[in-house]
Amino acid sequence: MSAAERIGVLTGGGDCPGLNAVIRAVTRKGIEVHGKEIVGFRSGWRGPLEGLTMPLGLEEVERILDRGGTILGSSRTNPYKEADGVARIKRTMAEQRIDALLAIGGEDTLGVANGLHEEGVPVVGVPKTIDNDLDATDYTFGFDTAVHIATEAIDRLRTTAESHHRALVVEVMGRHAGWIALHSGLAGGANVILGPEQRFSVDWVCDWVTRRFERQYAPIIVVAEGAIPQDGAEVLQAGERDAFGHVRLGGVGTWLAEEISQRTGNESRAVVLGHTQRGGTPTAYDRVLATRFGLHAMDALTEQDFGSMVALRGTEIVRVPLAEATAQLKTVPLHRYTEAQALFG
Amino acid sequence: MSAAERIGVLTGGGDCPGLNAVIRAVTRKGIEVHGKEIVGFRSGWRGPLEGLTMPLGLEEVERILDRGGTILGSSRTNPYKEADGVARIKRTMAEQRIDALLAIGGEDTLGVANGLHEEGVPVVGVPKTIDNDLDATDYTFGFDTAVHIATEAIDRLRTTAESHHRALVVEVMGRHAGWIALHSGLAGGANVILGPEQRFSVDWVCDWVTRRFERQYAPIIVVAEGAIPQDGAEVLQAGERDAFGHVRLGGVGTWLAEEISQRTGNESRAVVLGHTQRGGTPTAYDRVLATRFGLHAMDALTEQDFGSMVALRGTEIVRVPLAEATAQLKTVPLHRYTEAQALFG
Amino acid sequence: MSAAERIGVLTGGGDCPGLNAVIRAVTRKGIEVHGKEIVGFRSGWRGPLEGLTMPLGLEEVERILDRGGTILGSSRTNPYKEADGVARIKRTMAEQRIDALLAIGGEDTLGVANGLHEEGVPVVGVPKTIDNDLDATDYTFGFDTAVHIATEAIDRLRTTAESHHRALVVEVMGRHAGWIALHSGLAGGANVILGPEQRFSVDWVCDWVTRRFERQYAPIIVVAEGAIPQDGAEVLQAGERDAFGHVRLGGVGTWLAEEISQRTGNESRAVVLGHTQRGGTPTAYDRVLATRFGLHAMDALTEQDFGSMVALRGTEIVRVPLAEATAQLKTVPLHRYTEAQALFG
Amino acid sequence: MSAAERIGVLTGGGDCPGLNAVIRAVTRKGIEVHGKEIVGFRSGWRGPLEGLTMPLGLEEVERILDRGGTILGSSRTNPYKEADGVARIKRTMAEQRIDALLAIGGEDTLGVANGLHEEGVPVVGVPKTIDNDLDATDYTFGFDTAVHIATEAIDRLRTTAESHHRALVVEVMGRHAGWIALHSGLAGGANVILGPEQRFSVDWVCDWVTRRFERQYAPIIVVAEGAIPQDGAEVLQAGERDAFGHVRLGGVGTWLAEEISQRTGNESRAVVLGHTQRGGTPTAYDRVLATRFGLHAMDALTEQDFGSMVALRGTEIVRVPLAEATAQLKTVPLHRYTEAQALFG
Repeated sequence: MSAAERIGVLTGGGDCPGLNAVIRAVTRKGIEVHGKEIVGFRSGWRGPLEGLTMPLGLEEVERILDRGGTILGSSRTNPYKEADGVARIKRTMAEQRIDALLAIGGEDTLGVANGLHEEGVPVVGVPKTIDNDLDATDYTFGFDTAVHIATEAIDRLRTTAESHHRALVVEVMGRHAGWIALHSGLAGGANVILGPEQRFSVDWVCDWVTRRFERQYAPIIVVAEGAIPQDGAEVLQAGERDAFGHVRLGGVGTWLAEEISQRTGNESRAVVLGHTQRGGTPTAYDRVLATRFGLHAMDALTEQDFGSMVALRGTEIVRVPLAEATAQLKTVPLHRYTEAQALFG
Repeated sequence: MSAAERIGVLTGGGDCPGLNAVIRAVTRKGIEVHGKEIVGFRSGWRGPLEGLTMPLGLEEVERILDRGGTILGSSRTNPYKEADGVARIKRTMAEQRIDALLAIGGEDTLGVANGLHEEGVPVVGVPKTIDNDLDATDYTFGFDTAVHIATEAIDRLRTTAESHHRALVVEVMGRHAGWIALHSGLAGGANVILGPEQRFSVDWVCDWVTRRFERQYAPIIVVAEGAIPQDGAEVLQAGERDAFGHVRLGGVGTWLAEEISQRTGNESRAVVLGHTQRGGTPTAYDRVLATRFGLHAMDALTEQDFGSMVALRGTEIVRVPLAEATAQLKTVPLHRYTEAQALFG
Repeated sequence: MSAAERIGVLTGGGDCPGLNAVIRAVTRKGIEVHGKEIVGFRSGWRGPLEGLTMPLGLEEVERILDRGGTILGSSRTNPYKEADGVARIKRTMAEQRIDALLAIGGEDTLGVANGLHEEGVPVVGVPKTIDNDLDATDYTFGFDTAVHIATEAIDRLRTTAESHHRALVVEVMGRHAGWIALHSGLAGGANVILGPEQRFSVDWVCDWVTRRFERQYAPIIVVAEGAIPQDGAEVLQAGERDAFGHVRLGGVGTWLAEEISQRTGNESRAVVLGHTQRGGTPTAYDRVLATRFGLHAMDALTEQDFGSMVALRGTEIVRVPLAEATAQLKTVPLHRYTEAQALFG
Repeated sequence: MSAAERIGVLTGGGDCPGLNAVIRAVTRKGIEVHGKEIVGFRSGWRGPLEGLTMPLGLEEVERILDRGGTILGSSRTNPYKEADGVARIKRTMAEQRIDALLAIGGEDTLGVANGLHEEGVPVVGVPKTIDNDLDATDYTFGFDTAVHIATEAIDRLRTTAESHHRALVVEVMGRHAGWIALHSGLAGGANVILGPEQRFSVDWVCDWVTRRFERQYAPIIVVAEGAIPQDGAEVLQAGERDAFGHVRLGGVGTWLAEEISQRTGNESRAVVLGHTQRGGTPTAYDRVLATRFGLHAMDALTEQDFGSMVALRGTEIVRVPLAEATAQLKTVPLHRYTEAQALFG
């Protein structure tokens, strides 16, 4: 047998619009073009660890293209943190006669995939990150949907900011990279955009806020959840517990809104978009990208190009080594923030 | 002169999708059908208090139908809290030769309008409340848009809740009435809906949460910002300061998510929709209702039916006394919550 | 046995957003509150005629609330046009131990339901019409979605009309009643609205078109598919064949665009929205209405109030006799069109 | 004077979401960063031909980012088809003291810009085409919005196709290139995708249709308006007149739906999306791309890099010679259609 006959597919990590589109494309291309059998592993790496499977045929992937979530379920289980993790995965693959794996996920999931590859498990990867912070690919699916949702929110918040004469701070996703903040800020016409790449000055923010109010408009400040002030107190991130044991709903956004109120005397409020950015139906852009990723990943599997990952470069889908995939975080170049300032005042 | 020739229009209170649709309908009907001149007062009751006007002709109301906010601006200024408030309004009307006022606003704005009417100022009202809690009318514009936004958010949150195996608490608007919670909860398929009409039991909420998890689904709990627990600590509302001086971003929603986590052991997160619910382009439903309110309000002005307010009853626009408009809050009947429980489990 | 134990549910006629929301509410209330078994009949009246069933339990109605179409399938099969139709339905009910039927559909489906009721079959109805032309209820689900889609289209078409200096004729659904034309025309800011209730004058339309162009705006004309000119040639409806055997894509809209071009000298184009108006995810409004219809219909079944249909009156769900349901078409009162003219120029 | 001080901006050709975002970015960057004055020319090349100007300051470009159309107006006027066209443009520029032009438009507009450049007029270009068929850039703004609209329509049509057991043919834009058909077809899950790059076989289409019906699903066929059958009669395009003088609403889509009905015996209908694809608010993607184009074009003007055009390559904005811009049409490579077939059946 020269080619893998049974392919096991899994999705790992957090929710991301487009996962089902990848699953559908992989399954259809595997069956219809390459004559494979496709097996779904449930709940991320727990699936191959524990032998949790479900069939993936043409019927199973009907009508899932526009659905958020993943029909396979997900988890953050890491085989390298489980006793005999790799051995158990190999055993499951042998028992289920799985010839190769397709792992769809982010840094963690692909890191595991790369480890397995180095231990001889035939595996191909599909990158997934809402935050668009993977250096090996121009864009990842899910990002466009997140930007779309955040932009719609900013569009709506603008009229309320102006009716209420308030500064509005919109906290968007982005722990380590400010891509969602930058793109939704540009698309929504934000008056300040703050990412995690560089500590920001609250006074500088307040200068823009003041200028905007002087022009008789209400400012919108878009801030990535991972942004950190130069001159502020320690800011907790959303989800962390404060000194009194309370989980923080919003972190830097809530803090910044209060600072703006106090320093400028203008009423200011925060809105934390949170999980609304990462679920639900994908945009057309993300469906196309996810579908193309899936189609090409199945080609890589068929060609036994194991240890590779699909990626977008310009308008083309290419393959890169899994090892490179997770080597470097793609942050926003600082000149992109500077450039955006032309639009702030 | 048998009819009012110059009509002054103002919008008071918070942002609400549909305000511009009312302004457009009033202006066009006044000019095109009844041959009036229409004058805009800026910034709510501050406009007639301080003589702040802007022209309202056909050009000014082009392309505003689908825009959020209000081209007249708004404020929470109350003439009855200003020295000589009523006298100043009467003086402005005399100076500007304004024959009658059209006041578009909520309980406060219409309360002022009723006061002025009793002091002899010719005035007609158009009701406005996102919360839909005005007893005199079946629905108010803005409410459908708020429900639409909240429902879209719930749709998106559902897939993430399930991918992450979390309970999600969605806090929506509604200080005194749970209409937005009820309708968005029904439309989004919520597994618990909590309004401010009746104190809720956290244990009862946790029973539904547990049942839902047992069925292998992740529960969505929709809670109005004004909902209060029977058995919890004092819950601060969003925007209030806690004991340590921090402004609360979300109130009951954040608190409830934490209680659910602690009592059930299931991970739980809150999302506070906040201001995203009250701005931006109105739904088609709200544009139609706001337009019809505007057309009929101008008829009331032409017929000198002062002291009245337009209202929706079934499919018809009717008039009711301004005095009734603000007499009673329209809360959700408890049987509506009970009825919804068939859909929770 | 005092109450029906097994309820058969079917959906008949054309697609309409909200059908699945009714099915879900009926099923959940039946099972969770009233302890019934629910059986789905497939493909409208074909289901009970031919004994085509599917189970309807809690799992089957998960995640269908926001889905267009109907999980039961539909058809235009009429038992009264089939040999022994009624007898076959009674036989299926006996064989399947179905105690009562719930029929969800429009004039035809409910007409059959009423016939069966008169022949002793226990049946309750839920009204369904995109066109909102059923006299017995204030609104039907699906209508708000259709208006929403048409309004979004008009919003988009406006900028193109103006960039291209063209009149745009938008043909919307409505064979016998102009509700979709009226509401989407009001919501989209149409400059002429034409329904089927009264023959329209093309010259009158052209006067509005000319006036609008003189104001340097491009006119949007919204026309119901069933509208008929006073002074034009015979106009084919979309879907009919012309003298040369070609099926017409758009009927009156295409014809009117050409007349406007010829009579006014202004370029004019038609857009026929067609089926895009009647499918896909329902609006929040329609999900709430459909859910409430479903909940109340199951109450009617439990109370053995057979021969009744649920209906919306103001904010309440009421019951009316099935016989009344189809007695009279609800067309748009002419004064509603006249009133809208204030917004045309 | 070392740098251009007054920049004239114009938009030419058809409507395209994102034009206002370019105008805003150009104006803000010109004024705020480079200290220029910006002058708007109205109505495409008619503006500089006839001296039709409007001021472009910060106020004029507030709140236009999310608006469809162009605040400058557009036209298809070509100076090379006007007597003394170039001389008149040079005269206007001298009279208005315009140092350089920024031309935003498609093949025709940029062709004129290149001609003017060769005759010594300082000009920079920004590419615009809904159809995405410009070879010099990876993507153009407006395309993502068109794909988004078409995908939403396909999503809605799917449920109706299945409820009605019909094949649905969706005709989308694309006279010379099938990008919109390919991307919306992929995103919407089309069962056949037909572009203008290669004549299609109706029998081959019918094979896919039949296969889809056999699987108990209703097929969606997405066809570009410029697609041409191998084996059919001559097909008129939408907007052309047939032998009887009637303007065709839809061309190949309507024709194909009828062929499918006749050859397969399955009911089939066409929906022609037409102008709804090219107007209205741009997607977030298009707002970002258009904004970046505008910011970079102003840099090119400041650096006196005349005769150049901005373009997207991967994630970067680059400059290419205007002459290249219009040299070659970018059509869909045939392997992209072949690849998509894995998703058809």
